[in-house]
Formats: sequence, C-alpha cells, structure tokens
Amino acid sequence: MVIILKEHANKGEVEKLLHDIQDLGLNTHMIEGEQSSIIGLIGDTTKINADDISANDVVEAVRRVQEPYKLANRKFHQDDTVIDVEGTKIGGTNFQIIAGPCSVESREQITEIAKDVKKSGARFLRGGAFKPRTSPYAFQGLHDDGIKLLLEAKKETGLPIVTEIMSIAHIDLFADVDVIQVGARNMQNFELLKELGHSDKPILLKRGLANTLEELLMSAEYIMASGNENVILCERGIRTFETATRNTLDISAIPMLKSVSHLPVIVDPSHACGIAWMVEPMAKAAAAVGADGLIVEVHNNPAKALCDGKQSITPEAFDKLVKDLRPLVELSGKTL
Amino acid sequence: MVIILKEHANKGEVEKLLHDIQDLGLNTHMIEGEQSSIIGLIGDTTKINADDISANDVVEAVRRVQEPYKLANRKFHQDDTVIDVEGTKIGGTNFQIIAGPCSVESREQITEIAKDVKKSGARFLRGGAFKPRTSPYAFQGLHDDGIKLLLEAKKETGLPIVTEIMSIAHIDLFADVDVIQVGARNMQNFELLKELGHSDKPILLKRGLANTLEELLMSAEYIMASGNENVILCERGIRTFETATRNTLDISAIPMLKSVSHLPVIVDPSHACGIAWMVEPMAKAAAAVGADGLIVEVHNNPAKALCDGKQSITPEAFDKLVKDLRPLVELSGKTL
Amino acid sequence: MVIILKEHANKGEVEKLLHDIQDLGLNTHMIEGEQSSIIGLIGDTTKINADDISANDVVEAVRRVQEPYKLANRKFHQDDTVIDVEGTKIGGTNFQIIAGPCSVESREQITEIAKDVKKSGARFLRGGAFKPRTSPYAFQGLHDDGIKLLLEAKKETGLPIVTEIMSIAHIDLFADVDVIQVGARNMQNFELLKELGHSDKPILLKRGLANTLEELLMSAEYIMASGNENVILCERGIRTFETATRNTLDISAIPMLKSVSHLPVIVDPSHACGIAWMVEPMAKAAAAVGADGLIVEVHNNPAKALCDGKQSITPEAFDKLVKDLRPLVELSGKTL
Amino acid sequence: MVIILKEHANKGEVEKLLHDIQDLGLNTHMIEGEQSSIIGLIGDTTKINADDISANDVVEAVRRVQEPYKLANRKFHQDDTVIDVEGTKIGGTNFQIIAGPCSVESREQITEIAKDVKKSGARFLRGGAFKPRTSPYAFQGLHDDGIKLLLEAKKETGLPIVTEIMSIAHIDLFADVDVIQVGARNMQNFELLKELGHSDKPILLKRGLANTLEELLMSAEYIMASGNENVILCERGIRTFETATRNTLDISAIPMLKSVSHLPVIVDPSHACGIAWMVEPMAKAAAAVGADGLIVEVHNNPAKALCDGKQSITPEAFDKLVKDLRPLVELSGKTL
Repeated sequence: MVIILKEHANKGEVEKLLHDIQDLGLNTHMIEGEQSSIIGLIGDTTKINADDISANDVVEAVRRVQEPYKLANRKFHQDDTVIDVEGTKIGGTNFQIIAGPCSVESREQITEIAKDVKKSGARFLRGGAFKPRTSPYAFQGLHDDGIKLLLEAKKETGLPIVTEIMSIAHIDLFADVDVIQVGARNMQNFELLKELGHSDKPILLKRGLANTLEELLMSAEYIMASGNENVILCERGIRTFETATRNTLDISAIPMLKSVSHLPVIVDPSHACGIAWMVEPMAKAAAAVGADGLIVEVHNNPAKALCDGKQSITPEAFDKLVKDLRPLVELSGKTL
Repeated sequence: MVIILKEHANKGEVEKLLHDIQDLGLNTHMIEGEQSSIIGLIGDTTKINADDISANDVVEAVRRVQEPYKLANRKFHQDDTVIDVEGTKIGGTNFQIIAGPCSVESREQITEIAKDVKKSGARFLRGGAFKPRTSPYAFQGLHDDGIKLLLEAKKETGLPIVTEIMSIAHIDLFADVDVIQVGARNMQNFELLKELGHSDKPILLKRGLANTLEELLMSAEYIMASGNENVILCERGIRTFETATRNTLDISAIPMLKSVSHLPVIVDPSHACGIAWMVEPMAKAAAAVGADGLIVEVHNNPAKALCDGKQSITPEAFDKLVKDLRPLVELSGKTL
Repeated sequence: MVIILKEHANKGEVEKLLHDIQDLGLNTHMIEGEQSSIIGLIGDTTKINADDISANDVVEAVRRVQEPYKLANRKFHQDDTVIDVEGTKIGGTNFQIIAGPCSVESREQITEIAKDVKKSGARFLRGGAFKPRTSPYAFQGLHDDGIKLLLEAKKETGLPIVTEIMSIAHIDLFADVDVIQVGARNMQNFELLKELGHSDKPILLKRGLANTLEELLMSAEYIMASGNENVILCERGIRTFETATRNTLDISAIPMLKSVSHLPVIVDPSHACGIAWMVEPMAKAAAAVGADGLIVEVHNNPAKALCDGKQSITPEAFDKLVKDLRPLVELSGKTL
Repeated sequence: MVIILKEHANKGEVEKLLHDIQDLGLNTHMIEGEQSSIIGLIGDTTKINADDISANDVVEAVRRVQEPYKLANRKFHQDDTVIDVEGTKIGGTNFQIIAGPCSVESREQITEIAKDVKKSGARFLRGGAFKPRTSPYAFQGLHDDGIKLLLEAKKETGLPIVTEIMSIAHIDLFADVDVIQVGARNMQNFELLKELGHSDKPILLKRGLANTLEELLMSAEYIMASGNENVILCERGIRTFETATRNTLDISAIPMLKSVSHLPVIVDPSHACGIAWMVEPMAKAAAAVGADGLIVEVHNNPAKALCDGKQSITPEAFDKLVKDLRPLVELSGKTL
C-alpha cells in the first residue's frame, strides 16, 4: 500500500500517521518528492482499509499494491482448486456442464429435462426452487416442493443438483442439495455468505450485475474465511449502457479470474445476453478462453416457461450445443 | 404492452399467441404494417412478464407501455405519502435530516454524536450495528450491542433511530428500531423485502449500485405488496465508469422518482461520492431539486472511525451544513 | 413506431398530431386502452426522430419498432458483404488478420514487423501514423512520414496497409492507403464519416468506447449513405465500471452485429483489455463466435514501444497465436 | 508515480528499468517489501505514460501520484480563470446563462428567441448551425447560413454567440463567432482541439458521453498546450445503465472540476436528461453546487423544433427558470 501525502502536509500529523501505521504491525518507508511525498507500507496490508487511511487530513490518496484477498489468491495457492461432487470434478482439466430449467415447474418437466440433458452430456442438473424476480407479481418458484422434485430427478438420473438459495432462513431445506448457488443479486449478501462458509457444500457464486472481479473474489473470500473453500466462481454478464443484450458477457473475466485465483470459473451464457440464440456463441467463447464449465438454461417448451423462457434453449438445441462444444473444449486442453 | 411480430410470422402461431394473451384477461388489437405487424394489449399488464412473451417464436420484441409497479405509482395515488415516525413526518412539505456515524462504536461515541447532530437540526439518529463490508477482514459492527447503544442514545436525546438490517435472521433485534434501513447491496434481496412487508415499521430503501429507478420502485412494490406502505426511497449514488468519485450521485433520480411515485425520496450525500468535502455540495443539490431529506454520516473523529471515515464530516461541519441548507430548503417549498 | 399518449390527452391535440404524422406520408392506427392509448405508425419510419415526436405535449413516450438503419440492415441485404482489397477478401467465409505495431516508429521497425507478421499469416499490415493520445505530451505519430514508411513496408512485403485517419484535413495523405481506419474516438465524428463516404476505399470503423451497437450501425450508415458501402465494423472493447481490464470486450457484439447487419465484423483483442497476455484468449473468443478477423498489435520490443507497449505482443507470440487460432477458425466454418 | 514490481522480478531487468527512468531525468527510490517491491519516481512525471512502463516484463502495475495535466491544474494556477467575452465575464463570481435553440432554423426563429432569452436574463445566445446527429437522415443544420443568422441575431440583440464546430475544415466560417463549442462527441477529436488551441477565441468544451473528468481536463490541456488558455468546461450528462433519462447528470463533476482546475465550469441541463421538465431541477442543482453558468435549449415551439424538441423549454418557462435561479445563485456567492 502506498499513501500519497498532501502538499505542505503538517509534519507533526504525518509523524502521528506513521506511528499509527507502525502500531498496526507494518513498516513504513517515506519518499519525499518535489511536489508530493509518499509513504510505502511494508507487510501484510490485507486487513487495512484504504478508505480509513484516506480519512486522515494529511492524506491525498491511497493506492493498493497487494490484492485484498488471500485465501482466493493464486499467489498463495498455485494449483487449481478441483472440487469433487459425488465423484464429478469441477476445475483443473475438467469442463462440466450444468443444465436444466430456470424454474422447477412440475415432476414431469424436471425429470424429462434431466434425462434429456444427461443424455446430451450434462453432468449436473440445475433448476430454480426459489426464484429472485424483479416483480413481486411474477412466479416466485415452488420453494421446498421444487427442491423435492429436483431430488426426485436426481434419484432418477443420478445427476447431482444445483439450486439457488435466497435466504439463510431456508438453509435446512438445502440439506440434500449438492451445490448451492448464490445468485448475482446476493453476491454481496454478506450474512448469507458467512453462513454458507459454515457449510461443507460447494458454493456456486455468481458475479453481481455491477460488481468488479475484485469484489467477486472478496465475496468468495467471505465464504472461504468462514471455513468453506469449495467455491466456484461464475461470470454471468454485467450491466452496461448497451441495450441490445440484457447484460454484457465479460469474457475477459474468465482468463483474468483464473490468473489471479485458483478457484474454478464457469460461465452462464443464458443470463449473459438473455437471448436463446446467443447461448451457443457465448458458450463457445467461454470454452475457447478456458472456462471450467457452463451453467445453461434448457426448457422443453420455452414459450410456456414460467420464467426466463426468452433465454432458454430446447433439449435439441442443447444436444447440438454440446456436440459443437467438444472440439473447442479439447483445444483448450480440457475434457468435456 | 406492445408486441412486435417477426416478419413473415406463421399465422397459426400468431393466432395461438393472441388466444394465450386473451386467456390472461387482456384484449388484443392487431396493426399490420408494411414490414412488421404489432399487437397492442389492452388491460392491466402489470402481471405479465415481457420476457416470457419474447420467448415466443413469432415475437421479435416486446415494449412496455405501462409501468410495472402499481402501489408505488403516483398515477394511482396522487398525493404525497407522508410517513409519521413518533410525530416527526417524512414526505410532503417536510425536509428531514438523518445523521450519525457510519458505525456505532461505543456508548460515548454514539451519545455524543447524537447530542451534537440534534442540536444542529437532525431529527433522526443513524448508526450502523450490522455493517456490510466488502472485506471479511473489515470491522463488521457491534451487532445487537450496537442496537442497544442506539436505543440508549435515543433515550438520552429523543431522536428516533435508523439502522440497517442485513438478514431476516436478525429481525427480532430490530423490534425497537424506528426506521429499518435496507442497504444498496440488499435492494434486490427479495426474501428480506417480503419479510419487511409484514412489518409495520417505515423502511428506508436504498437504491442498488447499478439498479434502475424502475427496479428500485419494483423493490418498494415488494414491500408494499406484502402490506407495508411506509417506504422511503433513497438515492445514494450509482456505479459508473468515473473513478474520481466512489459513486456518481444521480441527481435526476430525485425529481424523476417524485414524478412517477408518491413515496418520499431522500439522498445520501456521504456514500454518493465517498468524500467528506463533497457532502456539502451534494446535500445542497439534493435540497435544490426537492428531495425530502438527507441521511448524512457524521463522526466526531473521522480519521479514527472504524469505517467510512473518508466520507464522514465532523459535528462542526454538520452544523454549518444545516445552516447553509435552510435557505435552499425554503426555496424548494419545504421546511427543515 | 408506437406512440404512447398521456392519460387524458387533449383530443384536439391528438388529432393534430395524427395529421402531422400523416403529412409525413405514414398511416396511423389508434388503439384506445383503459389507462393509456397508443398510436401505431405504418410505413417507413427511418427518417422520423423519436425524440421530436416525444416533444409533443400529448405524448408520454415513443417506442421504435423498426431499426433506424437501412443500408447496413441485413433485412434489406441478406448476403454477407465481402470486401475485396487487392485480391484479399474480408467477410463471408474468410478470417483475416491485420497485424502490426501501434505506431510506425522507423523504417527498420515497420519493415521487420511486416515481414514477421506476414510469415506468420497476417494478410494486412497495420501501423499508426496519426495517433490519438489522451495526453498532448505523448508521442503523436510520425504523420506523413509514417504513411510513407508503411507504403515502403507494403512494397517490401506486398501486404496491403491499414492506418487511422484523424482529420478530414489529412485525407490526401491517405491516397495510397488500402484500408482507412476510423478510431473509437471518431466513431461519431460525423463530418469525417460523410467525407469518407465519398471515398472508394474500405473503411474500418471502430466502435466508440460507450456507443451502442445501434449507434455503430448508424455511423456505418453515414458512410454508406454518402456512397461508400465498403465498411468493416470493429469491436474493440467498451467502457464499463470494471477496472481490472482497460476496457471490456463485448463478445456478444459480434454475433449480434452479424445477425442484424451484412457488414463484416472484426475484433481488436489488443485494445479490448489493454494487456498483452490477454490478446490470445480474446482472439480465440472472437474466432469462436464467428468474427471475420482480427486487428492485433505486434511490436518487436514492446517495452520500448513509443505507444501501447503494454498491450503489444511479440512476433513470436503472434506466430503462436495464429497457429493456435487455425483450428478454432476452421470450427467456425471460416478459412484463415 | 509508483511502480509495483512483480514478485521474483529479475534483478538485472529491474536495474535496467531504473536506468531507463533515470535517463528520463527522474530520480528513483526503491522500497523492498516482503511480497512485493515498489519504485517511487521523483520529479515531473507528466510526460511519462504509465502504460508504457507497464509493458516492462518486471512491472506488475503502475500507479499515478500526480495529475497528468499541468496547465489546467489548480495546483499551479490557484486563482479562478475569468474569461472576458466582449465585456461579459465567465468564471469567478459570475453566473452566466447561454440560451437559445438547439438548431438555428430561420431568421425569425433565432431573432425572436434571442430577444426573448435576453429579456429574461441570458447573456449569450446559443444555436446550432452544424448539428451532430446520430442518423444521417436527420436534419443536419443550416451550416454557414446558420452562422449568418446567428450573427444577425447578435446585431439585433447585442448577445455574443456560442455555436458548435464539427470540423477543422469549417474553421474560417467561425471567424465572427464569439465562443466556439466543442461537442461531447468531439471531446477527443484531438486534431480539432489542437487547431482550436491556435485560435484566440474562448472554447466551450463539453465532456464526452463516457469520458472521465481526467480525460476532460486532458482535452482542455490539448487546447491550452497549443496556446489558447480560454477554455470553459461543460458537464452535460454521462452515459450509464439508467434508461429513465437520456443521460445521467454528474452533479459531482462540478465541485470536483472546480477543486482540481481553475477553469470555469458550466452545466447543460437540457442534454443532461433529454427531458424538458427536468431542465429546471437540473439547473437548480447546478446553481446550488457552484457552477459558473448554464447552457440551456429554448425554443418557441418545441413540438415543431427540427431537433431536440423533447428537451427544449419555451421562452416562458425559461423566464420563470431564471427568476427561480436568482436566489439560488446568490446563495452560492455568485451574481446572475
């Protein structure tokens, strides 16, 4: 961390600041320039808040040198994290596809889709039981019944299940869920993250609509600091000025996250653009840049889906998608 | 709602779509253009999800005509909502200031600040007991002890208290809190919103970092649809590409929200820019455009604040701020 | 185009509006709803400005149904445009790579790089003679000497050259240039666009930092409407809140542009992120989603480059990149 | 400037980097930390490009300490710049209003509006002769005839005129114009900026749609570095994700620009939101935060305006606006 001092900063105040920092166990190093002087901090600055130091009267600005995350940082954990879910591995040289409907709607619907996507190559079943909807008047999911139906589909197909949690209050209902998803809108629901840190289940953590990669990693850090190191990061599109697509897939996020962190990174090509026909190109881009997998919305009757039909693809389209992806995944050095 | 059909859309499919919409209780009206045809929907489309209709094969796009919110909509509730908190009114011709530290740190700190801000003209005391922090290593607040200290400060000064809730699990601790704040990061924590809809306490709902005004109003609608109509909206800066300020205060949000909704709208000039000296101009801008009040961070020793010191002003600066604001508030036709 | 009327709109005023629109040669069709009425416009609305109609007192909002661009629109020109530059084709089933340094610095530099990139598979040479730099104190290019050196490198290698124009005043200097580039900052320099529309040279039009795809196509339309239909669109990253990369590559722009327009679309993976090691993954993503080519910065000594060294790759890295891209390009159905 | 070195950076390479920097006339100062080492640069770093240093293999990141602009920097020019246009002063304690139609349409229109806005208190007449329009099919202005009509209106009313330049090629036509405006889309048209730097006329420089304040100041620096120090900055709304308003007025830009620069700063409340009824609150916000003036679109028949009618106010509304602004301007310590 580097502290830039104001011009003509009061020397006594600067001395006091140096002492305060040294009291935190850090060494300081002062460089006096012509117009401005700076203080270099040596030691572990992870627990220092740059904004708090900025509040000091003699400080003009503070610039971080180290990343503020530790457990998620590849610098301290060079090998890829590989997460094992009932024998199916996420991360490393594996490319896994999670597929299923936006919402669980009925036993027939979820079981049929589960069979279809398994046959095509999906290794996990997704389906929403609790649905975050912008409007209180929209379908909110089948709740515990939805989870029961997912478990039935798992029984039938053997596919481990992935479903979203929206509240700590529901955590007991997720006892048999294989991977718990934290949605984009809850990426900074810190109480939920802390609670999931006490779980031993893998957590699929989606990037928030307007959250930086550093914030995403800090949210992963919340879960990991509470004891659960099984975090899967997910890029799902960010909010920009562009309106032709619902969100803008930040494709650079995948190599960047994999460079600075050891956690697996998957992509959600369905929410990324919010348009069914764009799922295929976005999925291909994800495979090409080295993503560790995908989470894709598949519905047997998109036009009648109770939610997100606009971005769901049919089982037939999904089957073609997986076929088209195989050679791309192989080129990236992974196995689908 | 207007549905734009694809060119050469299959007539049978269009017929089916018309029937589906009519089954939802709406009338349809078709306009056949040279290149594209459109369907106009007549009736209450609040409960129809545009994206679901977009999933239909014959549909090119859907455009909303009506706002998707009803209870928060000024069209159906022309008079300003005025919320009464122990005799102090928010909304209408009142301009109220909520002031206090980012975090409650100690009995002395919160009581001293409470007395100071009351003397200067604040009518509510704010203070964080549960703190949403980006880093798990940062100070997270005193939790229930923080709320107890706020209540002691209320006893001493008579100021009603405003504090943030981060989880449904904590709701019992908020039994004696006067106004419950929902932070920007929880604006779309829909489970929390629904729960707060069952409360009878006023809810101060902050706009999310990257949420549109329509989404803010839909979140207010969640609370209102569950039975609690006492919602105060708060603009606190949005995330943009600009890095000179932490966020960008969307000053146009205030007149726009007051135009389309009857709910009171206040401004947080502290989080808006994240810089102490900018609190004053941002507060003045808020008063000039007709905001119903402010929520301001005041700390007796910003450089030693356990959080957000960078954006906190001293009690002396707050005193001057209120004095400077009075004539501006009067020009806006309100009373401070 | 659909016009949404205000509630209780004055009938006489609405009548007047209907007449005004009919005077523009369009048919109108009124749908009276319970809360709001709408007017559907039938005919060619390309030349109608939605904002002008919005200025009318009785109008609440206007929604476009048709795209505002015609010449660039695939609806009226179904086949891919293929542009021929001295026998080398851009568009259709071709995947072309344009490579070279950010700036032309010397005869040795540009000729050496030209030979290197040609050997590796580039079919065009790029190099800046006029450089748009944020700072007036930064190197601004060699100007006409730069163009001369590019032409010498062309003579030596046979590679057609691509270079950026920054002002109409320089247009005569571009007489022997093969492809004229319009940079992101000039995408809406409409006077320049109109002038280039009178040229017969292919124009490589880069998307502005914060311009929508529709605006990009409208800028292409400017060139085309002035008579020059040889426009190549280029996605080069947009400005978002994320700071880990200089820009955010909008990978969805490629399939979206190719869906709505017949013009070729290439990608600039160098400016997209501003980081040399990310050129490779971004280039792969571009190939995977069906881009028609790349424009890549290659420098023989990036650390000593007079501009943009941070994002330039070495000739060796470029050689490996092309090799890695070949199978991906083939999978997309194109030929490199 | 602070250079952060990669971990385990090659010592020889670091030595070479140190020498390279010292060759540029700067002193270097090395701080070796536990995980990373940094180099502090002492001296004038204005002319060093951070990205170029980033290209060095041993460098992880570069952080600026000083602002990259000098002539526009208040640190080196503490007093407000006050620009005198035929006796009317912009900057300092003056609050000036520039008003007039988006486009000059006819002699009657521009003269009538000029008289109206003068009577109400405007001290400058604005009017577009060259109009930057997104669509090539939209009205592009009356060009030189437009400027002639503006000059006639000036003769009639005595109001100095402000009008936009779109191309260096037109500069002779601007010989009698009093203030030359550079529009948002040309803020980084560097060739135009350099040319205007050779003029002695005041330049009204608008912030680009997605340009940072630092970039705006660097564009001012371009003009100033070429010899023309009469630059007026203009905030006119930036592009964000919000769609309720056309742009988002960055109200914090005004105090921030005035803090870091000595140049006058005015606000365009018409383009800021693109909505006529929001001109008033945005203008009030501008006055409240200490802006040096406004540029406002006024049209005698907005619904029939050839451009931007949606955001134009009538002469009557303008008259009321000025009256309402007076007390606000006085509170800010300025004179209208």
